[in-house]
Amino acid sequence: MEKDEKIIEMSRQMWDNAVPHISVDSVVFGFHENQLKVLLTRMASTRQWLLPGGYVFKNENVEDAAQRVLRERTGVDRVYLQEFGVFGNINRSEGYFDDYEDDLWHKQRFISIGFYALVNYMEVIPEIDDYSDICEWKAIDEMPALAMDHQAIYDTALTSLRQQLSYKPIGMNLLPERFTISELQKLYETILGRTLNRGNFYRRIMRFGILIKHEDRRKGGAHKSPNLYSIDPVKYHESLQGIDW
Amino acid sequence: MEKDEKIIEMSRQMWDNAVPHISVDSVVFGFHENQLKVLLTRMASTRQWLLPGGYVFKNENVEDAAQRVLRERTGVDRVYLQEFGVFGNINRSEGYFDDYEDDLWHKQRFISIGFYALVNYMEVIPEIDDYSDICEWKAIDEMPALAMDHQAIYDTALTSLRQQLSYKPIGMNLLPERFTISELQKLYETILGRTLNRGNFYRRIMRFGILIKHEDRRKGGAHKSPNLYSIDPVKYHESLQGIDW
Repeated sequence: MEKDEKIIEMSRQMWDNAVPHISVDSVVFGFHENQLKVLLTRMASTRQWLLPGGYVFKNENVEDAAQRVLRERTGVDRVYLQEFGVFGNINRSEGYFDDYEDDLWHKQRFISIGFYALVNYMEVIPEIDDYSDICEWKAIDEMPALAMDHQAIYDTALTSLRQQLSYKPIGMNLLPERFTISELQKLYETILGRTLNRGNFYRRIMRFGILIKHEDRRKGGAHKSPNLYSIDPVKYHESLQGIDW
Repeated sequence: MEKDEKIIEMSRQMWDNAVPHISVDSVVFGFHENQLKVLLTRMASTRQWLLPGGYVFKNENVEDAAQRVLRERTGVDRVYLQEFGVFGNINRSEGYFDDYEDDLWHKQRFISIGFYALVNYMEVIPEIDDYSDICEWKAIDEMPALAMDHQAIYDTALTSLRQQLSYKPIGMNLLPERFTISELQKLYETILGRTLNRGNFYRRIMRFGILIKHEDRRKGGAHKSPNLYSIDPVKYHESLQGIDW
């Protein structure tokens, strides 16, 4: 009962503060121990898994809302965020919130704007919100079923990420500041779901012209210690505009 | 006065039938006489130019709304349509509809979903709506100033088109059913805004594996008559999923 009253009060606040009919949902990608992972939350009431999402305040830009929701769920600010699709079919969430009695906010039609985020896994501290009891990373090949149309939102995000990776060097947002070329190749292979030719990968990555080679090397491996690289932020920003044709 | 009453009545109908706070705006590209063109409308009341746009009915999917708006403005149905961005800054249309007295619909905050469309120029019959007095093609290097944030919407559409052209063979939607390789190259050069190497272009286009070569040839030129090609629809659809890495 107390829980219900809290949700009704939150619903009333939403009508006062947020733009009706609009939600943002984020597919947050992280890379850890050679696995691509996605941040998921579990609804406390239904025990179903969802992508982290939220609403747009009346005095807030849409992209700022996506950044805020992400900050609330990860503790990380100003991450690489890319809008990749609008999910606006009628009835996409119908019935999902039926157990929220008198909660008119959640019973609206919502058109959801999908963003994917590329974050440094080590910086994220997953946080639940008032509706969820779990917020945690899942490896993309061990994901639970997602509620509503969130499976389709996730699938579209992964396809967009793979396509954009082919002409923009965005993947490096997933790595720590310094990395070896092998670590970068492993990341690309994990995202693309297939192995890449080492020589072709090296040439293609170098063609972006955004890497800085450092004198220090990765120690401790069985092989000759490889060089560490980082991203030149100015050239990186320029390259995001570029097209390979 | 009569005009004002009509707009007030249309505004009332919008509140009854459409989802508030959401609009769709389309950047319709056509290719004619070696020029890339965009369909624009002029508001009758302000004489300012805009991209053609509209609203989403309460019982209508978002993408269907974009197709409907396009059909109303061009007479063409089921065109190649790609969502490319959401324009959701606060105050993006503030002040623009101030001359519409008592028209609360247009004074809302709107979050606009941008679609670009690639159409066969020859099939389009531009149509005005109740708010506009002109609807016509403009060559992209002879465009008038656009109102609100429509210049930014247009710029983002062109950037998206150029990027997507680098990994998907979407440009052929702009050509008649049969075309020569030279005509196709000219189209790509026009969209990208630069000349391309003839041999590289041929190899890249052929790598998509979607062209059917026909026995008949383009007659009437000064040179040896070149072969005509068309698109294999099944292979075209498959290739839209593909990634070049």
